[in-house]
Amino acid sequence: MSDAKLRLYELVFDNGRSPSPFVWRIRYALGRKGLPFESVPMGYMEMSAVLGDRFKTVPVVGHGETMLNESWDIAQYLDREFPDRPAIFSSPAEYAAARLHDEWFTAVIMRKLSKIYTLDIYNSVRAADRAYYRKSREARFGATLEEFTAGREALLPTVRQDLAPLRAQLARFPFLGGDAANYIDYIVLGAFQWVASVSTLPLLAHDDSLRDWLNRGFDLYGGIGRDPRMRPLFDQSA
Amino acid sequence: MSDAKLRLYELVFDNGRSPSPFVWRIRYALGRKGLPFESVPMGYMEMSAVLGDRFKTVPVVGHGETMLNESWDIAQYLDREFPDRPAIFSSPAEYAAARLHDEWFTAVIMRKLSKIYTLDIYNSVRAADRAYYRKSREARFGATLEEFTAGREALLPTVRQDLAPLRAQLARFPFLGGDAANYIDYIVLGAFQWVASVSTLPLLAHDDSLRDWLNRGFDLYGGIGRDPRMRPLFDQSA
Repeated sequence: MSDAKLRLYELVFDNGRSPSPFVWRIRYALGRKGLPFESVPMGYMEMSAVLGDRFKTVPVVGHGETMLNESWDIAQYLDREFPDRPAIFSSPAEYAAARLHDEWFTAVIMRKLSKIYTLDIYNSVRAADRAYYRKSREARFGATLEEFTAGREALLPTVRQDLAPLRAQLARFPFLGGDAANYIDYIVLGAFQWVASVSTLPLLAHDDSLRDWLNRGFDLYGGIGRDPRMRPLFDQSA
Repeated sequence: MSDAKLRLYELVFDNGRSPSPFVWRIRYALGRKGLPFESVPMGYMEMSAVLGDRFKTVPVVGHGETMLNESWDIAQYLDREFPDRPAIFSSPAEYAAARLHDEWFTAVIMRKLSKIYTLDIYNSVRAADRAYYRKSREARFGATLEEFTAGREALLPTVRQDLAPLRAQLARFPFLGGDAANYIDYIVLGAFQWVASVSTLPLLAHDDSLRDWLNRGFDLYGGIGRDPRMRPLFDQSA
């Protein structure tokens, strides 16, 4: 099985970019393990034709006959299936610590990023996906996308402050995971990839000390995080 | 050196209890490694007589001629000095993850706990230490202890909400560190030990799901976290 080619099914937006923060976790995990893969890009409206009814979210990974989703399950599958490659999780404790970090990051940071960037996402999805995206998100939020994102600028100071523990960690280590990047970094890098795919409002202040780490993170594994289509993450005004 | 007896210098309050959250991290770390130690209890006003001018904070650990403070340094020293005992940090990644967790916990949780419990601490320190404690803390906070803690009840809903990532983690694992307790647990357990040493305002709601984990945590290493002098952490009203 391990010699079968890996396929990464991912949503793409109008500019061809894959924005999902969860797909990006797996792109980084594949990079860490040095595993080549075939990207299978889809729009929202193509998912069921490509994947059937079994999977409603990306990433989905195909490996021979095996198909699985949920990024945590995929990462653990890759470690099991390719034990000779560098481990994504070097120990159960490292896996558990990444889960705890994700609980904080999702509850505190991702929730606010959704509010800031949902209308930008709408404006970035393929034309064929817009009606679906608007309808499904407005049902989830109980508000129009315009209402949901109204006043989003006011969230910027809060989310910048909420990122303070990351800056403190990076004053001590080159990566959030320590001397080398690990899944804790991928979680945050994935979120910044997502933001950079759609943003019309720079998330970070010009002088944010996260910049050096972001540059290191985007350079990982041959620069898989680099893409000229990325939008500015940093406010250009000093 | 390793056969020399360990000494743990710790501040004690009027009831004889050692409240420092950083001392408790080391008490748990010593418990994990199964290392016996001699406690050297001190009041604030006795520190310089016992330790000289070199150390201004606890914990301080003495081991033969070696004296060191800073809980992170102590924990790493214990792993270096007693490599045959269970490791406190099983890998550099586990150490780095604990540091990141601590950055969040200190910035978001400990800061609020200080505001809630500083006057309770004042009322719990030894009579000989009260004038020093009040003067040093009021200088630090730029306010009287009474002013600093005024309206502290209003912080309870916020800090309870801020603890949500821990509850989410504990819905998945028995300990914050995963299947076994690790330093990530000790950091949070240490804070609850501190609160339980002084609290006149229960930190957690009656039905908080952290209760089962706290019980497991207090039971660790022969129940070193159990003490009949502890004050209630849970609101008794349903």
